[in-house]
Amino acid sequence: MIVILKPQTTEAQINQLVAWMKNMNFEVNLSGKLQTIVGLIGDTTRLDIGTIKAIDCVEDVRRIQDPYKKANRKFHTEDTVVEIGAARVKIGGGNFQLIAGPCSVESEEQIITVAKAVKASGATILRGGAFKPRTSPYAFQGLHGEGLRLLELAKKETGLPIVTEIMDAAHIPLFANVDLIQIGARNMQNFELLKEVGEMRKPVLIKRGLANTLQELLMSAEYIMASGSPDVILCERGIRTFESATRNTLDISAVPVLRELTHLPVVIDPSHSCGVARWVKPLSLAAAAIGVDGLIIEVHNNPKCALCDGAQSLTPPAFDDVANCVRQIRACAAGMW
Amino acid sequence: MIVILKPQTTEAQINQLVAWMKNMNFEVNLSGKLQTIVGLIGDTTRLDIGTIKAIDCVEDVRRIQDPYKKANRKFHTEDTVVEIGAARVKIGGGNFQLIAGPCSVESEEQIITVAKAVKASGATILRGGAFKPRTSPYAFQGLHGEGLRLLELAKKETGLPIVTEIMDAAHIPLFANVDLIQIGARNMQNFELLKEVGEMRKPVLIKRGLANTLQELLMSAEYIMASGSPDVILCERGIRTFESATRNTLDISAVPVLRELTHLPVVIDPSHSCGVARWVKPLSLAAAAIGVDGLIIEVHNNPKCALCDGAQSLTPPAFDDVANCVRQIRACAAGMW
Amino acid sequence: MIVILKPQTTEAQINQLVAWMKNMNFEVNLSGKLQTIVGLIGDTTRLDIGTIKAIDCVEDVRRIQDPYKKANRKFHTEDTVVEIGAARVKIGGGNFQLIAGPCSVESEEQIITVAKAVKASGATILRGGAFKPRTSPYAFQGLHGEGLRLLELAKKETGLPIVTEIMDAAHIPLFANVDLIQIGARNMQNFELLKEVGEMRKPVLIKRGLANTLQELLMSAEYIMASGSPDVILCERGIRTFESATRNTLDISAVPVLRELTHLPVVIDPSHSCGVARWVKPLSLAAAAIGVDGLIIEVHNNPKCALCDGAQSLTPPAFDDVANCVRQIRACAAGMW
Amino acid sequence: MIVILKPQTTEAQINQLVAWMKNMNFEVNLSGKLQTIVGLIGDTTRLDIGTIKAIDCVEDVRRIQDPYKKANRKFHTEDTVVEIGAARVKIGGGNFQLIAGPCSVESEEQIITVAKAVKASGATILRGGAFKPRTSPYAFQGLHGEGLRLLELAKKETGLPIVTEIMDAAHIPLFANVDLIQIGARNMQNFELLKEVGEMRKPVLIKRGLANTLQELLMSAEYIMASGSPDVILCERGIRTFESATRNTLDISAVPVLRELTHLPVVIDPSHSCGVARWVKPLSLAAAAIGVDGLIIEVHNNPKCALCDGAQSLTPPAFDDVANCVRQIRACAAGMW
Repeated sequence: MIVILKPQTTEAQINQLVAWMKNMNFEVNLSGKLQTIVGLIGDTTRLDIGTIKAIDCVEDVRRIQDPYKKANRKFHTEDTVVEIGAARVKIGGGNFQLIAGPCSVESEEQIITVAKAVKASGATILRGGAFKPRTSPYAFQGLHGEGLRLLELAKKETGLPIVTEIMDAAHIPLFANVDLIQIGARNMQNFELLKEVGEMRKPVLIKRGLANTLQELLMSAEYIMASGSPDVILCERGIRTFESATRNTLDISAVPVLRELTHLPVVIDPSHSCGVARWVKPLSLAAAAIGVDGLIIEVHNNPKCALCDGAQSLTPPAFDDVANCVRQIRACAAGMW
Repeated sequence: MIVILKPQTTEAQINQLVAWMKNMNFEVNLSGKLQTIVGLIGDTTRLDIGTIKAIDCVEDVRRIQDPYKKANRKFHTEDTVVEIGAARVKIGGGNFQLIAGPCSVESEEQIITVAKAVKASGATILRGGAFKPRTSPYAFQGLHGEGLRLLELAKKETGLPIVTEIMDAAHIPLFANVDLIQIGARNMQNFELLKEVGEMRKPVLIKRGLANTLQELLMSAEYIMASGSPDVILCERGIRTFESATRNTLDISAVPVLRELTHLPVVIDPSHSCGVARWVKPLSLAAAAIGVDGLIIEVHNNPKCALCDGAQSLTPPAFDDVANCVRQIRACAAGMW
Repeated sequence: MIVILKPQTTEAQINQLVAWMKNMNFEVNLSGKLQTIVGLIGDTTRLDIGTIKAIDCVEDVRRIQDPYKKANRKFHTEDTVVEIGAARVKIGGGNFQLIAGPCSVESEEQIITVAKAVKASGATILRGGAFKPRTSPYAFQGLHGEGLRLLELAKKETGLPIVTEIMDAAHIPLFANVDLIQIGARNMQNFELLKEVGEMRKPVLIKRGLANTLQELLMSAEYIMASGSPDVILCERGIRTFESATRNTLDISAVPVLRELTHLPVVIDPSHSCGVARWVKPLSLAAAAIGVDGLIIEVHNNPKCALCDGAQSLTPPAFDDVANCVRQIRACAAGMW
Repeated sequence: MIVILKPQTTEAQINQLVAWMKNMNFEVNLSGKLQTIVGLIGDTTRLDIGTIKAIDCVEDVRRIQDPYKKANRKFHTEDTVVEIGAARVKIGGGNFQLIAGPCSVESEEQIITVAKAVKASGATILRGGAFKPRTSPYAFQGLHGEGLRLLELAKKETGLPIVTEIMDAAHIPLFANVDLIQIGARNMQNFELLKEVGEMRKPVLIKRGLANTLQELLMSAEYIMASGSPDVILCERGIRTFESATRNTLDISAVPVLRELTHLPVVIDPSHSCGVARWVKPLSLAAAAIGVDGLIIEVHNNPKCALCDGAQSLTPPAFDDVANCVRQIRACAAGMW
């Protein structure tokens, strides 16, 4: 940590500050000419930047060390491979998976139909919402427990492991048979939920919040890992910017940046990124070429009757085409990263 | 709701669409030349825009009606006045209140000292965090139940009603003696929490999320109101932008905009907006002049030893100065809005 | 254009408004229940939204028609193919080109060396800055006229057409031998420059501004086209968001969105998007897969001695690798869009 | 400047780097444990961060020193007072001024009427656009030379000095009788224009770009100052964010932040910030309370017939009310900053 002192700081103030820092077991290095620069050496992850900034003679503070450890590639150079479900479907470390299914589980017929269709096209994990975060209290909120039951039925029918979003730690008992627990974008910094989900010791897929930096995403992964689950998958699903032509702005650069910063697998959700079915394919091709570890795509047997997010859902034939093209691009790009 | 059809839409498609809409009990109005424009008249709050967009011949959809009702000034023209605690401290409808206290409750001595100091300076509600949302799992997370106990002690000692943040619906029983329940910015769209807090039927202060629009803030208020509590206070605390000179960017315009859209009281949190103690005063003056219904300010007896957010905490004498100046500006500005 | 009137608008006000609109030769369509919705039919591109909003009884105004015409695919369905230089290098409509070269032209030796290297790797257009927009007045601003002379020398030596940025209309005479005129991101809305460059009737490459929407980019292209040059190439080079891990955030979705909205070619600048040399390759692969019409990449023979933007420049061998991989991805993806 | 080296950097690499830095006349300070931290002491404003980042063993670079000098309060502690026009109207250093007038000059009658009205209400500088930056090439672009002539006429008639926007350095001769030259938000980083306007040695009002940081605004002021004009006024006029309820988001915190960083006067443009006439008053009150040095407000005698930006223009009586209230708030707040 680098602490920049104000130009008029006296020697007495500097000495007092240095003594205080040494007392907390940091090594201290002084430099600078116009302004004194204090280098703080030691484990500064437990230090609150705000407390340092509150000291009178401090002008600014810059963190040098990354504030995350378990998720940090510096301390864990090998790629993490997450295994999902009884079938031990692998993601990360060169293993690529297609996750597909409807925005919400609506009925037995719907989820079984879609599950069989996406499996036939090569999807290896089934997605489907039982608890839906909706901006409006008057919108369809999901089938809840019944939705989870239908997902389990679809798993039995197709053998696909299932991923679905949890919105409240109180629902954890209902998620016993869910293979991959999803933390939605709006809950990325619901720290109590992160801690309790981490204690489930199941694989977790965490979506980046609409206004969260990649470092904050890693800090949230760190919460889950520190609570017990080492198997975290990061999901880029678009961030909020001034551009309104797309629902969100897919931050495709997140893939190479995260590959450097962390050993955890990274997937992309093109459906929520753009919000428009006809743009899901081009975004999927780009994601495949850049070397993402998986894609999570919305597929609905009848998008225009979907109870939510119909605009961004692919029909099964359209998904089949996307899956085929993605496989080809991935085969071509493998070895280029 | 206005639905814009693609230029090449056939008459048969238009007729099919119109029949479908009429079947859902909407009145339909057609217009346009190059492209057909379909006006949908009726209660469209329950309609999912995505489902309409998923229809082949649809180019775009625009909502005309506000998707919130209970929070909407159109249907409730009088200002809501929220009464807090046994003392029935009033906020809104011309009643202005100062909410002050430390970021976290740290000890009995600290909270009592600060509570007495802020009361002496004119604060009428005491704030203090017991459960703290922290980006890092390694940072101080609050005293939890013990923190709540100390807040209640401070209330007994000073008579000030208390406001503190809830992070998990499972903690609701612990909040029985809290007078004003706070929903933090990171939980603004934690819809399960909103619903359960609404059912407590207590006054709720909800903070705007870092990347949430004012309309989304009103939708979250709508969740709480639809669940049972009509007493919601909205809090602007800075949004996330590209500017990094301040911690967040205070959206001061939110005050006049919200005053038009809703009847609910609006408060500003200058401390979290800027993140720097010496800018809290100028922001408080601006907020007072623009006619906000309250201010929520961090005060700590020893900011440089605060366990979190010391950088933005005022000392009690600095708060006393802010409170004095705010009162003068408010007296001068009253009648100008 | 849709005009939403306030709930309490009187019939007299509505009649007056309708008369005024009809007087401007618009057809008018009224609908709505709680609030009157006025549909304005005719060429509204010349109408100022602000003037309509200023009318007392108006609550809101929404544009339905796109405000651009010449750049609009609705009125020009065929892809535009831009031909550059004496060699008539084609871009758009299925023609892909690699544009490469140093950030700034620094010396004869440098530009000739880099030009030969990028040509050998398959680049077909040479880039190089002679006038450099620098945030600091104390930074290197380019060789100006001398830089243009060196670029022309490199063109003579290699046969590559050249692209370079113009910053002031007063410099137009110096750009007589430049094959493709570049408008930089910071000048995307320097409308006087757009008009004068359009009058040169040369191909123009216009970069999206850091905070400009795709619609604004199309409006700026419209300026150039309306001034005389139909040959405009659009360049996505990253937008400004809250994320700071990359210099800017590459908006990869701009490619499919622009392909729908316009017939003009679209290129991506991965170097300025991320600002880090080692991320240029993955971003280039993604861009190739999504079907962009060209890439513009910074290449320097000695990045760590570059006079500007060294951090994002590739060495010639690194560029050779990128060019190879991009060709393979493009061959694989062709036919998928 | 702080340079952070990668963990695996060898001693030979460090020695080579240090030698190179010393050769450029910097003092060098080494520290750190897991990673070497290199402190670079000397005038780093001329160093390009990109060039340092391009060095193989460098992980990250952080600037400590501000990259601006002439605009920096550290080197010029006294407030700058800018004097405008023959009347030497003072702004800054405790002097507050109201700048008002129409968005565009439309006719002699219009500009004279508005000028007299705003003067009667206490405005001391007249604004009015002759060259208008419009997003659409089909929108009204201003009266150009004729507009300047009418502004001069209004100055003669009322004695008010005039401010108007310049969009092209080629127009400089036309601006000889303009008292305060305005650089618009879209041209904030049109560096060629900044340099040429600086050479006019007249007072300059520069507006912050929609996506520019305060530091970039100061760098643009530095361009003007380095070119010859010390009299620069900074204008905050709203930044672009995800919020669409207002045209832009007024960054009111810019006022206390800039007051710390620079000695230059700061004004606020509430009209462009919000884009809605009825919100101009509350924003003006906030600006007055926070201690801004001036306000620039759009006033039109007939907003609903304005040729541009009618939605945000005040009528003369509405401006009179704003001016009165602003004076009262300012009188109350003076001494609080």
